[in-house]
Amino acid sequence: MPVNLTAPVAELLLPVAGVSLGIAQANIKRENRKDLLVMQLCDGARVAGVFTQNRFCAAPVIVAREHLAHAEGIRALVVNTGNANAGTGEQGLRDARTSCAALAGVLGCKATQILPFSTGVIMEPLPVAKIAAGLPGAVANMRADNWYDAAQAIMTTDIVAKATSKQITIDGAIITITGIAKGSGMIHPNMATMLGYIATDAAIAQPLLQAIVSEAANRSFNCITVDGDTSTNDALMLIATGKAAMTEVKAADSKAGKALQAAISEVAIFLAQAIVRDGEGATKFIIVQVEGGKNEAECKQIGYAIARSPLVKTAFFASDPNLGRILAAIGYAGINDLDVANLKLYLDDVLVADNGGRAASYREEDGQRVMQQSDITIRVALNRGVANATLWTCDFSYDYVKINASYRS
Amino acid sequence: MPVNLTAPVAELLLPVAGVSLGIAQANIKRENRKDLLVMQLCDGARVAGVFTQNRFCAAPVIVAREHLAHAEGIRALVVNTGNANAGTGEQGLRDARTSCAALAGVLGCKATQILPFSTGVIMEPLPVAKIAAGLPGAVANMRADNWYDAAQAIMTTDIVAKATSKQITIDGAIITITGIAKGSGMIHPNMATMLGYIATDAAIAQPLLQAIVSEAANRSFNCITVDGDTSTNDALMLIATGKAAMTEVKAADSKAGKALQAAISEVAIFLAQAIVRDGEGATKFIIVQVEGGKNEAECKQIGYAIARSPLVKTAFFASDPNLGRILAAIGYAGINDLDVANLKLYLDDVLVADNGGRAASYREEDGQRVMQQSDITIRVALNRGVANATLWTCDFSYDYVKINASYRS
Repeated sequence: MPVNLTAPVAELLLPVAGVSLGIAQANIKRENRKDLLVMQLCDGARVAGVFTQNRFCAAPVIVAREHLAHAEGIRALVVNTGNANAGTGEQGLRDARTSCAALAGVLGCKATQILPFSTGVIMEPLPVAKIAAGLPGAVANMRADNWYDAAQAIMTTDIVAKATSKQITIDGAIITITGIAKGSGMIHPNMATMLGYIATDAAIAQPLLQAIVSEAANRSFNCITVDGDTSTNDALMLIATGKAAMTEVKAADSKAGKALQAAISEVAIFLAQAIVRDGEGATKFIIVQVEGGKNEAECKQIGYAIARSPLVKTAFFASDPNLGRILAAIGYAGINDLDVANLKLYLDDVLVADNGGRAASYREEDGQRVMQQSDITIRVALNRGVANATLWTCDFSYDYVKINASYRS
Repeated sequence: MPVNLTAPVAELLLPVAGVSLGIAQANIKRENRKDLLVMQLCDGARVAGVFTQNRFCAAPVIVAREHLAHAEGIRALVVNTGNANAGTGEQGLRDARTSCAALAGVLGCKATQILPFSTGVIMEPLPVAKIAAGLPGAVANMRADNWYDAAQAIMTTDIVAKATSKQITIDGAIITITGIAKGSGMIHPNMATMLGYIATDAAIAQPLLQAIVSEAANRSFNCITVDGDTSTNDALMLIATGKAAMTEVKAADSKAGKALQAAISEVAIFLAQAIVRDGEGATKFIIVQVEGGKNEAECKQIGYAIARSPLVKTAFFASDPNLGRILAAIGYAGINDLDVANLKLYLDDVLVADNGGRAASYREEDGQRVMQQSDITIRVALNRGVANATLWTCDFSYDYVKINASYRS
């Protein structure tokens, strides 16, 4: 079950002026579930995004990149679950383009003004006819207050829908930001290991929009891992409709630019953490803080060695303070000049290890107490610099194996 | 249960002239099990080895390296299971040296002529008094034909003992090679992710001995992974007693040097594969062949991305040909100029993917047939060079989680 994460309350998800959402049941993988989402954008809305770095990136990722580059004004996004359209070669590209053309026909715009996204099983042909058949229904029920259903429509192995809203004030205007995301397995950043959509009614210049979404991804989705597997379909899209009563923001270092970056990053971090809390089979939410490094890269490298270790993750599942496994992971992280005698390891407030071994003050019952919690912080103080990094991960349980051994059945 | 691996037959393990083995029950972690091994070497025996690259390397690894560098002639090795003496700081170093001194006292040699090894739980103090108390008994029952018991005495979560013997002829002399190893979890090479001891009665010059053991490790233990966790205690030791009726071999490229390298590598590969076949929770043995790469490093990088992927490993556990997960792993392996349209993926003899997607000839029932096997080859043809690499791994099952969630209890 998700770790300290409940489903969003539909009424608390705020509409974003200029964005309408329509959902359909297209029977892509299973019958009788919402599996198709159309997000229609107002004229003048701007879109920026970051995509997976996986070399086997999915056909919709390639097509979405192309269409964003066209810069003719994106009018809609179409998202299907149940099939990733990844590892599908030329046919996959044709299918992604056909989906865009089908939606363009319904909406009366060009196919290049549509961004396609897919998530689900890899290396199976996209049932593009089912998607085309589902689109008119999705468009017919388009509403501005449909964010909760939208979050549900993009789920795969997710247990709860992931969505949040936030409002800030810029020069007296109320700015709304609402975001949704999906993801539970095949979660390891580079970039974003899932699908995420954040929309705001703020007016943001295109170059700044791209800068904001890249920074938000780096501070959120690029700091999580469930199983170390980087997806073929990751995408985080940021939409700015410009409907709010404000002057367009162009500079990242302006007061409004900073406020937008902070608020959008906050929404992205909430969604990224929600993905980990709903990680496949998760029973614990684990925060890995590595501080005092020479640079952020080595902090992340050590953090990920810990966060990816099956031995560390199974120990957390068992609430067993077998914390030597964390030392082993630090040791094999690949930092060749690391002096292990200088570092300190903490579990929440408990000093576990220093001087290359177990701390003299450490008592098993203190470790045991922290291991019983559902939210746990592993803190590694490297004492060799001033850089730091924080990652989020979950434990590794029977249910992870169960979910992934039966994913296609 | 181990995959196509049965316990060795004690009678088929050949004594190596110049090596005697004694076993004791020292009650290090549990009562009433063999947990202490002493290997005594004849005067003039040479020893070379490779050790873990983990920065948190265990105290016995540090001390064994020191004692090997002394080059006063190693007279014995002492191995305990049940406690790794890793993450134990200065006290751990003192304990490892105390173990050596205790055995030196019994045998009448210097402490620096003893090599210590430990395996088991990390970050708990070594019960050095129990080891010292057990040594006289181990020395008292010293025998040349004790290899089977020796293999049993070093096991931790291993289900079956791992040992093999081989004989070759060099210039008319029969040369014997016998090796034992332990390891089942925390298995990921760099080097050797386990303990392995190979002894031969061949006469091999010290520099060649080191070259042979390094090459054998690279071709065997450095090609396996169970869970991606590199141990703090890995060591592979090669002993050459020189008792065979042959001239000392000095040159790696001599006929005898090549024959010894091939035979010793073969023993090392058998033991390395045995570790994977007995990998924690393993139900499948998976051979990952990556060929046609620009260099061996990129072949290993792609091979390990596949071999470490929890999603690939759970699909194999389920016998589910969800083979898109292999494409995803290839895609995130970090080869930035990889053209995925050029590669081919095979499962045994079945062509699964080409041209960036599922092969036209691929049928689900063919993939399903291969997935039912207990030994399976994943072959990736990169078509961008002439280098290749072969790795061995196992699947990921409920039992892996069970074993590692309850390891200390």
